[in-house]
Amino acid sequence: MKVLVVGANGQIGSQLVEKLHSGQKHEVRAMVRKEEQAEKFRGDGVETVLADLEGSVEDIAAAAKGCDAVVFTAGSGPNTGMDKTILVDLDGAVKTVEAAEKAGVSRYIQVSAIQANNRENWSEKIRPYFAAKHYADRELIRSSLNYTIIRPGGLLNEPGTGKVKAAENLERASIPREDVASVIAAALDEEKTYKKSFDLVSGDLSPEEALREL
Amino acid sequence: MKVLVVGANGQIGSQLVEKLHSGQKHEVRAMVRKEEQAEKFRGDGVETVLADLEGSVEDIAAAAKGCDAVVFTAGSGPNTGMDKTILVDLDGAVKTVEAAEKAGVSRYIQVSAIQANNRENWSEKIRPYFAAKHYADRELIRSSLNYTIIRPGGLLNEPGTGKVKAAENLERASIPREDVASVIAAALDEEKTYKKSFDLVSGDLSPEEALREL
Repeated sequence: MKVLVVGANGQIGSQLVEKLHSGQKHEVRAMVRKEEQAEKFRGDGVETVLADLEGSVEDIAAAAKGCDAVVFTAGSGPNTGMDKTILVDLDGAVKTVEAAEKAGVSRYIQVSAIQANNRENWSEKIRPYFAAKHYADRELIRSSLNYTIIRPGGLLNEPGTGKVKAAENLERASIPREDVASVIAAALDEEKTYKKSFDLVSGDLSPEEALREL
Repeated sequence: MKVLVVGANGQIGSQLVEKLHSGQKHEVRAMVRKEEQAEKFRGDGVETVLADLEGSVEDIAAAAKGCDAVVFTAGSGPNTGMDKTILVDLDGAVKTVEAAEKAGVSRYIQVSAIQANNRENWSEKIRPYFAAKHYADRELIRSSLNYTIIRPGGLLNEPGTGKVKAAENLERASIPREDVASVIAAALDEEKTYKKSFDLVSGDLSPEEALREL
């Protein structure tokens, strides 16, 4: 599969690009917003495309053209205002869904947040972020795409352990970003993840095993 | 019809409550968040119920129980943060939709914003507000409810002119809040508005005439 990684400059996105680029199984195209971000990837020999999640669906569709899958790993992050939470985490994600449909890309993996599907379990401190993810996920589920929604627990910058737990509903716990990237890579062509949403935390199965048990 | 007005303390909501309460055609129940807001309505002899759009769907459903229609006129307003834009204008609206379904109330009128349905026409200064309205409207359209989405232009605090223009797509223009309240009251049992969304600005037809021409 040729995979468009949206948010390639982010902490999960950059690790996913590296895994896909160095692996044998898939090809990768990194989507970033700024020319200086693109240069870094090009320097590493990674195919790169410029597009802005605050821009048009048409521009994002052009970036996705020719790919077999889109992975949305972008996030406005904790250092921007709530306006970006709405415009990037929600509207940017939904534009990417529409862009994938427009470009004829049927496979779509969304990185969401643990229990974003259940209002009563949203993290009190960042409820607006959970709400944005919640509605982006709802739009994706109703799209025509073959989706997978991965809802990781608290994200850590530690090296991955290579061991995870995945299920429809899990207690809040944490997981290294590197392990989230590994699960995304393993999910791309794992049929057990098609049209499914699941929570993801650290556990004791390999990504492949954890996904096969879904 | 017995009508639950959500956001009864707001500028459109309070005028709608007054119109419905003084008219002969419908009964009204005002939904407000704070006890001091409730006292004002009770003093005027208006049935009033307390519920919070940041609370549970169950609480809002209890407030809607026994009504025939719900009108969502609430808005976080320009003086609160973007967090409230997500939690009230988007999530609060969708909770109210879910509450109406739960309470068996089938008619639902949503006050949205002119061209909220077209990203390219969102007001640049308040794009996050338009995005919140956009996704709330999308959720309502996909619900089981008999909806009407009214998308007024720039809201004025002037007295109403009693003359409006309504159509699926209109150029940006303004309209007094009182005229929006009149159009909501006229739309409640106007079949031409069922399962429809339309822009609304000042014009030269009465609310009844304008809606019949939809």
